[in-house]
Amino acid sequence: MPFYQYFNGDIIPVDAPVFKTNDLGLLRGFGLFDYFRTYNGVPFRWNDYWQRFENSAKLLKLPLAITQEETAKILADLYALSEEKEVAFRFVLTGGYAPDSVNVVKPNFLIKTEALPQDNPAGRLKGIKVLPYEYVRDLPEVKSTNYVHMVLMADKMREEQASDLLFYKDGEVSELTRSNVFIIKDNVLITSDANILKGITRKVVMELAAPFFEIQVRRVTYDELMSADEVFTTSTTKWVMPIVRIGTHTVGNGLAGRHSLFLQGLLEKLVSEWGK
Amino acid sequence: MPFYQYFNGDIIPVDAPVFKTNDLGLLRGFGLFDYFRTYNGVPFRWNDYWQRFENSAKLLKLPLAITQEETAKILADLYALSEEKEVAFRFVLTGGYAPDSVNVVKPNFLIKTEALPQDNPAGRLKGIKVLPYEYVRDLPEVKSTNYVHMVLMADKMREEQASDLLFYKDGEVSELTRSNVFIIKDNVLITSDANILKGITRKVVMELAAPFFEIQVRRVTYDELMSADEVFTTSTTKWVMPIVRIGTHTVGNGLAGRHSLFLQGLLEKLVSEWGK
Repeated sequence: MPFYQYFNGDIIPVDAPVFKTNDLGLLRGFGLFDYFRTYNGVPFRWNDYWQRFENSAKLLKLPLAITQEETAKILADLYALSEEKEVAFRFVLTGGYAPDSVNVVKPNFLIKTEALPQDNPAGRLKGIKVLPYEYVRDLPEVKSTNYVHMVLMADKMREEQASDLLFYKDGEVSELTRSNVFIIKDNVLITSDANILKGITRKVVMELAAPFFEIQVRRVTYDELMSADEVFTTSTTKWVMPIVRIGTHTVGNGLAGRHSLFLQGLLEKLVSEWGK
Repeated sequence: MPFYQYFNGDIIPVDAPVFKTNDLGLLRGFGLFDYFRTYNGVPFRWNDYWQRFENSAKLLKLPLAITQEETAKILADLYALSEEKEVAFRFVLTGGYAPDSVNVVKPNFLIKTEALPQDNPAGRLKGIKVLPYEYVRDLPEVKSTNYVHMVLMADKMREEQASDLLFYKDGEVSELTRSNVFIIKDNVLITSDANILKGITRKVVMELAAPFFEIQVRRVTYDELMSADEVFTTSTTKWVMPIVRIGTHTVGNGLAGRHSLFLQGLLEKLVSEWGK
Protein backbone atom coordinates (compact mmCIF):
# COMPACT_ATOMS: atom_id res chain seq x y z
CA MET A 1 0.00 0.00 0.00
CA PRO A 2 2.50 2.65 -1.12
CA PHE A 3 0.11 5.58 -0.68
CA TYR A 4 1.22 9.10 -1.47
CA GLN A 5 -0.14 12.52 -0.72
CA TYR A 6 0.05 15.94 -2.32
CA PHE A 7 1.03 18.93 -0.18
CA ASN A 8 1.36 22.46 -1.60
CA GLY A 9 2.88 21.25 -4.88
CA ASP A 10 4.82 18.18 -3.80
CA ILE A 11 3.96 14.49 -3.94
CA ILE A 12 5.31 12.75 -0.82
CA PRO A 13 4.78 9.50 1.11
CA VAL A 14 1.57 9.49 3.13
CA ASP A 15 3.26 8.95 6.52
CA ALA A 16 5.82 11.76 6.27
CA PRO A 17 5.71 14.57 8.86
CA VAL A 18 4.29 17.49 6.92
CA PHE A 19 2.69 20.23 8.97
CA LYS A 20 4.71 22.80 10.83
CA THR A 21 3.25 23.63 14.21
CA ASN A 22 1.94 27.12 13.47
CA ASP A 23 -0.72 25.90 11.07
CA LEU A 24 -4.11 27.51 11.73
CA GLY A 25 -5.89 24.20 11.19
CA LEU A 26 -3.96 22.78 14.10
CA LEU A 27 -3.84 25.84 16.37
CA ARG A 28 -7.28 27.30 15.67
CA GLY A 29 -9.34 24.56 14.06
CA PHE A 30 -9.46 26.77 10.97
CA GLY A 31 -9.72 24.22 8.22
CA LEU A 32 -12.10 22.35 5.98
CA PHE A 33 -11.99 19.11 4.11
CA ASP A 34 -13.74 16.98 1.57
CA TYR A 35 -13.77 13.27 0.92
CA PHE A 36 -14.73 11.16 -2.07
CA ARG A 37 -13.82 7.89 -3.72
CA THR A 38 -13.32 6.17 -7.03
CA TYR A 39 -15.52 3.56 -8.63
CA ASN A 40 -13.79 1.58 -11.35
CA GLY A 41 -10.84 3.88 -10.77
CA VAL A 42 -12.80 7.02 -11.64
CA PRO A 43 -13.60 9.65 -8.98
CA PHE A 44 -17.36 9.57 -8.39
CA ARG A 45 -19.23 12.82 -9.18
CA TRP A 46 -15.98 14.75 -9.24
CA ASN A 47 -17.61 17.99 -10.41
CA ASP A 48 -20.02 17.95 -7.49
CA TYR A 49 -17.33 17.28 -4.90
CA TRP A 50 -15.06 19.96 -6.36
CA GLN A 51 -17.87 22.52 -6.33
CA ARG A 52 -18.67 21.74 -2.72
CA PHE A 53 -15.00 22.02 -1.80
CA GLU A 54 -14.78 25.37 -3.59
CA ASN A 55 -17.87 26.54 -1.75
CA SER A 56 -16.50 25.56 1.69
CA ALA A 57 -13.26 27.38 0.86
CA LYS A 58 -15.20 30.47 -0.19
CA LEU A 59 -17.23 30.47 3.03
CA LEU A 60 -14.04 30.30 5.11
CA LYS A 61 -12.49 32.96 2.81
CA LEU A 62 -9.58 30.68 1.88
CA PRO A 63 -8.28 31.22 -1.65
CA LEU A 64 -7.45 28.13 -3.72
CA ALA A 65 -4.06 28.23 -5.44
CA ILE A 66 -4.97 25.45 -7.85
CA THR A 67 -7.62 24.82 -10.52
CA GLN A 68 -10.00 21.90 -10.89
CA GLU A 69 -8.06 20.63 -13.92
CA GLU A 70 -4.72 20.77 -12.11
CA THR A 71 -6.27 18.95 -9.18
CA ALA A 72 -7.73 16.27 -11.45
CA LYS A 73 -4.25 15.63 -12.81
CA ILE A 74 -2.88 15.20 -9.26
CA LEU A 75 -5.69 12.76 -8.42
CA ALA A 76 -4.78 10.69 -11.48
CA ASP A 77 -1.13 10.64 -10.40
CA LEU A 78 -1.96 9.67 -6.82
CA TYR A 79 -4.30 6.96 -8.05
CA ALA A 80 -1.61 5.52 -10.34
CA LEU A 81 0.95 5.59 -7.51
CA SER A 82 -1.42 3.74 -5.17
CA GLU A 83 -1.50 0.62 -7.36
CA GLU A 84 -4.97 -0.05 -5.93
CA LYS A 85 -8.17 -0.79 -7.79
CA GLU A 86 -10.10 1.79 -5.76
CA VAL A 87 -9.03 4.57 -3.39
CA ALA A 88 -10.55 7.41 -1.40
CA PHE A 89 -9.24 10.96 -1.52
CA ARG A 90 -9.29 13.41 1.36
CA PHE A 91 -8.78 17.10 0.68
CA VAL A 92 -7.71 19.22 3.65
CA LEU A 93 -7.45 22.99 3.30
CA THR A 94 -6.27 24.89 6.37
CA GLY A 95 -5.63 28.55 7.15
CA GLY A 96 -1.92 27.85 6.67
CA TYR A 97 1.08 28.98 8.65
CA ALA A 98 0.39 32.07 10.74
CA PRO A 99 3.23 34.01 12.35
CA ASP A 100 0.70 35.61 14.73
CA SER A 101 -1.43 32.47 15.28
CA VAL A 102 -4.49 34.38 14.04
CA ASN A 103 -4.35 35.82 10.54
CA VAL A 104 -4.45 33.79 7.33
CA VAL A 105 -1.45 34.39 5.08
CA LYS A 106 -1.49 31.46 2.65
CA PRO A 107 -3.60 28.30 3.04
CA ASN A 108 -2.08 24.84 3.15
CA PHE A 109 -3.60 22.34 0.74
CA LEU A 110 -3.28 18.62 1.26
CA ILE A 111 -4.67 15.72 -0.77
CA LYS A 112 -4.36 12.35 0.92
CA THR A 113 -4.83 9.03 -0.80
CA GLU A 114 -6.58 6.66 1.58
CA ALA A 115 -7.64 3.03 1.52
CA LEU A 116 -11.40 2.61 1.23
CA PRO A 117 -12.92 2.36 4.71
CA GLN A 118 -14.29 -0.96 5.87
CA ASP A 119 -17.67 -1.49 4.32
CA ASN A 120 -20.58 -2.34 6.58
CA PRO A 121 -22.54 -4.82 4.41
CA ALA A 122 -24.45 -6.13 7.43
CA GLY A 123 -25.49 -2.56 8.28
CA ARG A 124 -26.69 -1.95 4.74
CA LEU A 125 -28.85 -5.05 4.92
CA LYS A 126 -30.09 -4.99 8.50
CA GLY A 127 -29.82 -1.32 9.34
CA ILE A 128 -27.89 0.50 12.05
CA LYS A 129 -28.54 2.07 15.42
CA VAL A 130 -27.83 5.77 16.02
CA LEU A 131 -27.97 7.93 19.14
CA PRO A 132 -30.01 11.13 19.16
CA TYR A 133 -27.74 14.02 20.20
CA GLU A 134 -28.82 17.58 20.91
CA TYR A 135 -26.48 19.69 18.83
CA VAL A 136 -26.36 21.74 15.70
CA ARG A 137 -23.14 22.14 13.77
CA ASP A 138 -21.54 25.55 13.67
CA LEU A 139 -21.39 26.86 10.09
CA PRO A 140 -23.11 23.68 8.84
CA GLU A 141 -22.71 24.54 5.14
CA VAL A 142 -18.94 24.34 5.54
CA LYS A 143 -17.36 20.90 5.62
CA SER A 144 -15.20 22.20 8.44
CA THR A 145 -12.84 20.04 10.47
CA ASN A 146 -14.79 20.62 13.68
CA TYR A 147 -15.85 17.13 14.79
CA VAL A 148 -15.14 17.40 18.49
CA HIS A 149 -18.45 15.89 19.58
CA MET A 150 -18.09 12.91 17.29
CA VAL A 151 -14.65 12.03 18.63
CA LEU A 152 -15.75 12.75 22.19
CA MET A 153 -18.75 10.41 21.89
CA ALA A 154 -16.85 7.54 20.24
CA ASP A 155 -16.67 5.55 23.51
CA LYS A 156 -20.34 6.04 24.25
CA MET A 157 -21.27 4.89 20.74
CA ARG A 158 -19.22 1.71 21.11
CA GLU A 159 -20.81 1.11 24.50
CA GLU A 160 -24.30 1.48 23.08
CA GLN A 161 -23.43 -0.46 19.91
CA ALA A 162 -24.46 2.59 17.92
CA SER A 163 -22.86 3.60 14.63
CA ASP A 164 -23.36 7.34 14.71
CA LEU A 165 -24.99 10.39 16.27
CA LEU A 166 -28.14 11.97 14.88
CA PHE A 167 -28.18 15.72 15.55
CA TYR A 168 -31.35 17.55 16.56
CA LYS A 169 -31.96 20.91 18.18
CA ASP A 170 -35.08 22.84 19.18
CA GLY A 171 -37.29 20.02 17.92
CA GLU A 172 -35.70 19.87 14.47
CA VAL A 173 -33.53 17.18 12.95
CA SER A 174 -30.54 18.21 10.85
CA GLU A 175 -28.00 15.50 9.99
CA LEU A 176 -25.67 12.82 11.34
CA THR A 177 -22.03 13.55 12.18
CA ARG A 178 -20.90 12.95 8.59
CA SER A 179 -24.03 12.05 6.65
CA ASN A 180 -27.51 13.26 5.77
CA VAL A 181 -30.81 11.87 6.95
CA PHE A 182 -33.98 10.95 5.04
CA ILE A 183 -37.31 9.80 6.39
CA ILE A 184 -40.12 8.06 4.53
CA LYS A 185 -43.70 8.57 5.65
CA ASP A 186 -46.71 7.38 3.66
CA ASN A 187 -44.49 6.82 0.60
CA VAL A 188 -43.16 10.40 0.67
CA LEU A 189 -39.38 10.88 0.83
CA ILE A 190 -38.46 13.80 3.12
CA THR A 191 -35.05 15.28 3.88
CA SER A 192 -33.89 18.24 5.91
CA ASP A 193 -32.77 21.44 4.20
CA ALA A 194 -31.63 23.45 7.23
CA ASN A 195 -28.39 23.33 9.22
CA ILE A 196 -26.91 20.62 7.04
CA LEU A 197 -23.95 19.99 4.85
CA LYS A 198 -25.37 19.29 1.42
CA GLY A 199 -24.15 15.79 0.73
CA ILE A 200 -23.33 14.62 -2.78
CA THR A 201 -24.82 11.19 -2.07
CA ARG A 202 -27.93 12.99 -0.78
CA LYS A 203 -28.18 14.76 -4.13
CA VAL A 204 -27.61 11.55 -6.11
CA VAL A 205 -30.25 9.69 -4.10
CA MET A 206 -32.78 12.43 -4.77
CA GLU A 207 -32.02 12.19 -8.49
CA LEU A 208 -32.45 8.42 -8.42
CA ALA A 209 -35.63 8.63 -6.35
CA ALA A 210 -37.32 11.35 -8.41
CA PRO A 211 -39.11 9.02 -10.88
CA PHE A 212 -40.50 6.89 -8.05
CA PHE A 213 -41.27 9.10 -5.06
CA GLU A 214 -42.73 12.42 -4.07
CA ILE A 215 -39.75 14.24 -2.51
CA GLN A 216 -40.00 17.00 0.08
CA VAL A 217 -36.90 19.04 0.95
CA ARG A 218 -37.81 20.98 4.08
CA ARG A 219 -37.37 21.19 7.82
CA VAL A 220 -37.96 17.85 9.54
CA THR A 221 -39.18 17.73 13.11
CA TYR A 222 -38.00 15.32 15.75
CA ASP A 223 -41.58 14.06 16.08
CA GLU A 224 -41.71 13.24 12.37
CA LEU A 225 -38.45 11.35 12.69
CA MET A 226 -39.87 9.32 15.54
CA SER A 227 -43.06 8.46 13.68
CA ALA A 228 -41.44 7.76 10.29
CA ASP A 229 -42.10 4.48 8.46
CA GLU A 230 -38.47 4.32 7.38
CA VAL A 231 -35.30 6.30 8.13
CA PHE A 232 -32.00 6.12 6.31
CA THR A 233 -28.77 8.04 6.06
CA THR A 234 -26.63 8.79 3.01
CA SER A 235 -22.94 9.45 2.54
CA THR A 236 -19.96 8.58 0.38
CA THR A 237 -19.12 5.63 2.59
CA LYS A 238 -22.59 4.68 3.88
CA TRP A 239 -24.42 4.80 0.50
CA VAL A 240 -28.06 4.37 1.59
CA MET A 241 -27.86 2.98 5.10
CA PRO A 242 -31.14 2.09 6.83
CA ILE A 243 -31.51 3.34 10.41
CA VAL A 244 -33.60 0.93 12.46
CA ARG A 245 -32.93 2.16 15.99
CA ILE A 246 -32.69 5.72 17.30
CA GLY A 247 -31.58 5.41 20.90
CA THR A 248 -34.25 3.23 22.50
CA HIS A 249 -36.77 3.89 19.74
CA THR A 250 -37.38 1.27 17.06
CA VAL A 251 -38.09 2.59 13.56
CA GLY A 252 -41.09 0.85 11.96
CA ASN A 253 -40.86 -2.87 12.61
CA GLY A 254 -37.11 -2.71 13.29
CA LEU A 255 -36.10 -4.08 9.89
CA ALA A 256 -34.53 -2.22 6.97
CA GLY A 257 -37.44 -0.76 5.00
CA ARG A 258 -38.28 -1.79 1.44
CA HIS A 259 -38.09 1.74 0.03
CA SER A 260 -34.67 2.25 1.63
CA LEU A 261 -33.40 -1.03 0.20
CA PHE A 262 -34.85 -0.15 -3.21
CA LEU A 263 -32.97 3.18 -3.28
CA GLN A 264 -29.85 1.43 -2.02
CA GLY A 265 -30.16 -0.94 -5.00
CA LEU A 266 -30.45 1.96 -7.44
CA LEU A 267 -27.33 3.60 -6.01
CA GLU A 268 -25.42 0.32 -6.04
CA LYS A 269 -26.25 -0.12 -9.71
CA LEU A 270 -25.15 3.44 -10.53
CA VAL A 271 -21.77 3.16 -8.83
CA SER A 272 -21.06 -0.33 -10.16
CA GLU A 273 -21.27 1.07 -13.67
CA TRP A 274 -19.50 4.36 -12.88
CA GLY A 275 -16.83 5.33 -15.39
CA LYS A 276 -17.48 2.35 -17.64
CA MET B 1 15.83 33.78 17.98
CA PRO B 2 16.77 30.09 18.03
CA PHE B 3 13.43 28.87 19.40
CA TYR B 4 12.84 25.20 20.02
CA GLN B 5 9.80 23.10 20.67
CA TYR B 6 9.07 19.84 22.44
CA PHE B 7 7.09 17.15 20.63
CA ASN B 8 6.32 13.75 22.17
CA GLY B 9 9.68 13.49 23.91
CA ASP B 10 11.98 15.31 21.49
CA ILE B 11 13.33 18.85 21.47
CA ILE B 12 13.44 20.15 17.88
CA PRO B 13 13.68 23.48 16.04
CA VAL B 14 10.43 25.42 16.07
CA ASP B 15 10.04 25.58 12.28
CA ALA B 16 10.51 21.87 11.56
CA PRO B 17 7.66 19.94 9.91
CA VAL B 18 6.26 17.88 12.75
CA PHE B 19 2.70 16.67 12.35
CA LYS B 20 1.78 13.78 10.13
CA THR B 21 -1.43 14.33 8.22
CA ASN B 22 -3.67 11.90 10.10
CA ASP B 23 -3.59 13.89 13.31
CA LEU B 24 -7.06 14.33 14.82
CA GLY B 25 -6.33 17.95 15.69
CA LEU B 26 -5.85 18.65 12.03
CA LEU B 27 -8.52 16.37 10.56
CA ARG B 28 -11.22 16.72 13.22
CA GLY B 29 -10.40 19.83 15.21
CA PHE B 30 -9.92 17.53 18.18
CA GLY B 31 -7.37 19.39 20.21
CA LEU B 32 -6.83 21.81 23.04
CA PHE B 33 -4.15 24.21 24.03
CA ASP B 34 -2.92 26.49 26.74
CA TYR B 35 -0.75 29.56 26.69
CA PHE B 36 1.25 31.37 29.35
CA ARG B 37 4.39 33.42 29.70
CA THR B 38 7.37 34.11 31.90
CA TYR B 39 8.04 37.18 34.01
CA ASN B 40 11.66 37.57 35.02
CA GLY B 41 12.22 34.22 33.34
CA VAL B 42 9.77 32.39 35.60
CA PRO B 43 6.48 30.98 34.24
CA PHE B 44 3.64 33.05 35.72
CA ARG B 45 1.16 31.10 37.91
CA TRP B 46 2.42 27.80 36.52
CA ASN B 47 0.31 25.69 38.90
CA ASP B 48 -2.86 27.40 37.76
CA TYR B 49 -2.07 27.01 34.06
CA TRP B 50 -1.08 23.38 34.48
CA GLN B 51 -4.30 22.61 36.36
CA ARG B 52 -6.39 24.24 33.68
CA PHE B 53 -4.52 22.31 31.00
CA GLU B 54 -5.11 19.05 32.89
CA ASN B 55 -8.78 19.90 33.22
CA SER B 56 -9.17 20.60 29.48
CA ALA B 57 -7.45 17.28 28.73
CA LYS B 58 -9.76 15.46 31.11
CA LEU B 59 -12.85 17.01 29.53
CA LEU B 60 -11.70 15.87 26.08
CA LYS B 61 -10.74 12.47 27.59
CA LEU B 62 -7.13 12.82 26.44
CA PRO B 63 -4.62 11.15 28.77
CA LEU B 64 -1.40 13.02 29.55
CA ALA B 65 1.77 10.97 29.18
CA ILE B 66 3.84 13.40 31.23
CA THR B 67 3.76 14.85 34.75
CA GLN B 68 3.80 18.46 35.87
CA GLU B 69 7.37 18.06 37.14
CA GLU B 70 8.63 16.57 33.89
CA THR B 71 6.91 19.36 31.99
CA ALA B 72 8.47 22.04 34.22
CA LYS B 73 11.90 20.60 33.40
CA ILE B 74 11.15 20.84 29.65
CA LEU B 75 10.01 24.45 30.08
CA ALA B 76 13.30 25.27 31.79
CA ASP B 77 15.24 23.64 28.94
CA LEU B 78 13.25 25.46 26.25
CA TYR B 79 13.68 28.76 28.08
CA ALA B 80 17.45 28.26 28.33
CA LEU B 81 17.67 27.37 24.62
CA SER B 82 15.71 30.50 23.65
CA GLU B 83 18.40 32.85 25.00
CA GLU B 84 15.60 35.39 25.56
CA LYS B 85 14.78 37.32 28.70
CA GLU B 86 11.08 36.42 28.46
CA VAL B 87 9.17 33.90 26.36
CA ALA B 88 5.65 32.56 25.96
CA PHE B 89 4.82 28.87 25.94
CA ARG B 90 2.02 27.27 23.96
CA PHE B 91 0.86 23.77 24.85
CA VAL B 92 -1.04 21.89 22.16
CA LEU B 93 -2.58 18.51 22.89
CA THR B 94 -4.36 16.79 20.01
CA GLY B 95 -6.19 13.48 19.59
CA GLY B 96 -3.04 12.14 17.91
CA TYR B 97 -2.63 9.98 14.84
CA ALA B 98 -5.76 8.04 13.98
CA PRO B 99 -5.65 5.23 11.43
CA ASP B 100 -9.46 5.50 11.04
CA SER B 101 -9.63 9.33 11.23
CA VAL B 102 -12.01 9.05 14.21
CA ASN B 103 -10.77 7.19 17.28
CA VAL B 104 -8.10 8.46 19.65
CA VAL B 105 -5.16 6.08 20.02
CA LYS B 106 -2.43 8.22 21.59
CA PRO B 107 -2.48 12.01 21.91
CA ASN B 108 0.24 14.22 20.44
CA PHE B 109 1.74 16.73 22.87
CA LEU B 110 3.55 19.81 21.67
CA ILE B 111 5.14 22.65 23.63
CA LYS B 112 6.14 25.62 21.53
CA THR B 113 8.40 28.41 22.67
CA GLU B 114 7.13 31.69 21.26
CA ALA B 115 8.26 35.28 21.28
CA LEU B 116 6.08 37.49 23.45
CA PRO B 117 3.31 39.02 21.35
CA GLN B 118 3.45 42.72 20.59
CA ASP B 119 2.19 44.60 23.57
CA ASN B 120 -0.57 47.16 23.11
CA PRO B 121 0.48 49.91 25.55
CA ALA B 122 -1.77 52.46 23.85
CA GLY B 123 -4.72 50.07 24.26
CA ARG B 124 -3.96 49.60 27.94
CA LEU B 125 -3.96 53.35 28.44
CA LYS B 126 -6.76 54.49 26.15
CA GLY B 127 -8.87 51.35 25.89
CA ILE B 128 -9.90 49.27 22.90
CA LYS B 129 -12.92 48.79 20.69
CA VAL B 130 -14.60 45.40 20.41
CA LEU B 131 -17.44 44.13 18.23
CA PRO B 132 -20.45 42.42 19.82
CA TYR B 133 -20.90 38.99 18.20
CA GLU B 134 -23.80 36.62 18.77
CA TYR B 135 -22.16 33.32 19.58
CA VAL B 136 -21.44 31.02 22.45
CA ARG B 137 -18.41 28.75 22.41
CA ASP B 138 -18.98 25.04 22.19
CA LEU B 139 -17.63 23.28 25.31
CA PRO B 140 -16.53 26.65 26.75
CA GLU B 141 -14.72 25.12 29.75
CA VAL B 142 -12.26 23.46 27.37
CA LYS B 143 -9.51 25.61 25.92
CA SER B 144 -10.19 23.87 22.63
CA THR B 145 -8.59 24.84 19.34
CA ASN B 146 -11.93 25.86 17.82
CA TYR B 147 -11.48 29.53 16.90
CA VAL B 148 -13.11 29.52 13.48
CA HIS B 149 -15.18 32.64 14.09
CA MET B 150 -12.22 34.65 15.33
CA VAL B 151 -10.15 33.87 12.24
CA LEU B 152 -13.16 34.36 9.98
CA MET B 153 -13.87 37.81 11.43
CA ALA B 154 -10.25 39.04 11.35
CA ASP B 155 -10.88 41.16 8.21
CA LYS B 156 -14.02 42.69 9.63
CA MET B 157 -12.21 43.59 12.86
CA ARG B 158 -9.43 45.31 10.95
CA GLU B 159 -12.00 47.16 8.87
CA GLU B 160 -13.81 48.39 11.99
CA GLN B 161 -10.56 49.08 13.84
CA ALA B 162 -11.72 46.70 16.53
CA SER B 163 -9.39 44.53 18.59
CA ASP B 164 -11.65 41.61 19.37
CA LEU B 165 -15.13 40.08 19.42
CA LEU B 166 -17.31 40.10 22.51
CA PHE B 167 -19.59 37.04 22.58
CA TYR B 168 -23.20 37.23 23.72
CA LYS B 169 -26.16 34.94 23.24
CA ASP B 170 -29.78 34.99 24.39
CA GLY B 171 -29.22 38.31 26.16
CA GLU B 172 -26.21 37.09 28.15
CA VAL B 173 -22.58 38.07 27.83
CA SER B 174 -19.93 35.35 28.14
CA GLU B 175 -16.39 36.25 27.07
CA LEU B 176 -14.18 37.58 24.27
CA THR B 177 -12.51 35.27 21.76
CA ARG B 178 -9.52 34.64 24.05
CA SER B 179 -10.17 36.65 27.18
CA ASN B 180 -12.68 37.24 29.96
CA VAL B 181 -14.87 40.26 30.51
CA PHE B 182 -15.55 42.31 33.64
CA ILE B 183 -17.95 45.19 34.12
CA ILE B 184 -18.01 47.77 36.87
CA LYS B 185 -21.31 49.31 37.94
CA ASP B 186 -21.70 51.52 41.00
CA ASN B 187 -18.27 50.41 42.29
CA VAL B 188 -19.19 46.69 42.09
CA LEU B 189 -16.96 44.43 40.01
CA ILE B 190 -19.00 41.84 38.08
CA THR B 191 -17.82 39.00 35.87
CA SER B 192 -19.61 36.23 34.05
CA ASP B 193 -19.54 32.67 35.38
CA ALA B 194 -21.37 30.88 32.56
CA ASN B 195 -20.15 29.67 29.17
CA ILE B 196 -16.63 30.89 29.77
CA LEU B 197 -13.12 29.59 29.91
CA LYS B 198 -11.91 30.35 33.40
CA GLY B 199 -8.97 32.61 32.78
CA ILE B 200 -5.95 32.63 35.06
CA THR B 201 -5.62 36.41 34.71
CA ARG B 202 -9.34 36.65 35.59
CA LYS B 203 -8.60 34.73 38.79
CA VAL B 204 -5.55 36.86 39.62
CA VAL B 205 -7.49 40.08 39.05
CA MET B 206 -10.24 38.90 41.40
CA GLU B 207 -7.61 38.15 44.06
CA LEU B 208 -6.05 41.59 43.61
CA ALA B 209 -9.44 43.32 43.63
CA ALA B 210 -10.85 41.54 46.69
CA PRO B 211 -9.58 44.03 49.31
CA PHE B 212 -10.98 46.99 47.37
CA PHE B 213 -14.21 45.96 45.64
CA GLU B 214 -17.38 44.02 46.11
CA ILE B 215 -17.10 41.24 43.54
CA GLN B 216 -20.03 39.42 41.94
CA VAL B 217 -19.42 36.28 39.90
CA ARG B 218 -22.68 35.57 38.09
CA ARG B 219 -24.48 35.76 34.80
CA VAL B 220 -24.11 39.16 33.14
CA THR B 221 -26.79 40.45 30.81
CA TYR B 222 -26.18 42.31 27.58
CA ASP B 223 -28.17 45.24 29.01
CA GLU B 224 -25.87 45.40 32.04
CA LEU B 225 -22.86 45.43 29.73
CA MET B 226 -24.34 48.33 27.79
CA SER B 227 -25.08 50.36 30.91
CA ALA B 228 -21.83 49.61 32.75
CA ASP B 229 -19.67 52.42 34.11
CA GLU B 230 -16.52 50.60 33.04
CA VAL B 231 -15.76 47.45 31.05
CA PHE B 232 -12.45 45.65 30.77
CA THR B 233 -11.07 42.35 29.56
CA THR B 234 -8.36 40.16 31.07
CA SER B 235 -5.93 37.67 29.58
CA THR B 236 -2.31 36.57 29.67
CA THR B 237 -1.44 39.02 26.92
CA LYS B 238 -4.01 41.76 27.55
CA TRP B 239 -3.54 42.04 31.35
CA VAL B 240 -6.37 44.42 32.32
CA MET B 241 -7.41 46.04 29.05
CA PRO B 242 -10.13 48.72 29.23
CA ILE B 243 -12.92 48.40 26.64
CA VAL B 244 -14.22 51.82 25.68
CA ARG B 245 -16.27 51.02 22.57
CA ILE B 246 -18.58 48.07 21.93
CA GLY B 247 -19.59 48.35 18.30
CA THR B 248 -21.18 51.79 18.04
CA HIS B 249 -21.74 52.05 21.79
CA THR B 250 -19.41 54.16 23.93
CA VAL B 251 -18.69 52.85 27.42
CA GLY B 252 -19.01 55.58 30.08
CA ASN B 253 -17.34 58.72 28.81
CA GLY B 254 -15.23 56.81 26.27
CA LEU B 255 -12.05 56.93 28.33
CA ALA B 256 -10.35 54.12 30.23
CA GLY B 257 -12.01 54.01 33.66
CA ARG B 258 -10.18 54.76 36.89
CA HIS B 259 -11.05 51.42 38.52
CA SER B 260 -9.83 49.54 35.46
CA LEU B 261 -6.56 51.47 35.47
CA PHE B 262 -6.18 50.92 39.21
CA LEU B 263 -6.52 47.12 38.77
CA GLN B 264 -4.19 47.24 35.81
CA GLY B 265 -1.63 48.93 38.04
CA LEU B 266 -1.97 46.23 40.71
CA LEU B 267 -1.43 43.52 38.10
CA GLU B 268 1.53 45.33 36.60
CA LYS B 269 3.14 45.53 40.02
CA LEU B 270 2.55 41.83 40.69
CA VAL B 271 4.10 40.63 37.43
CA SER B 272 7.02 43.04 37.59
CA GLU B 273 8.05 41.38 40.86
CA TRP B 274 7.20 37.84 39.77
CA GLY B 275 9.88 35.26 40.58
CA LYS B 276 12.07 37.78 42.34
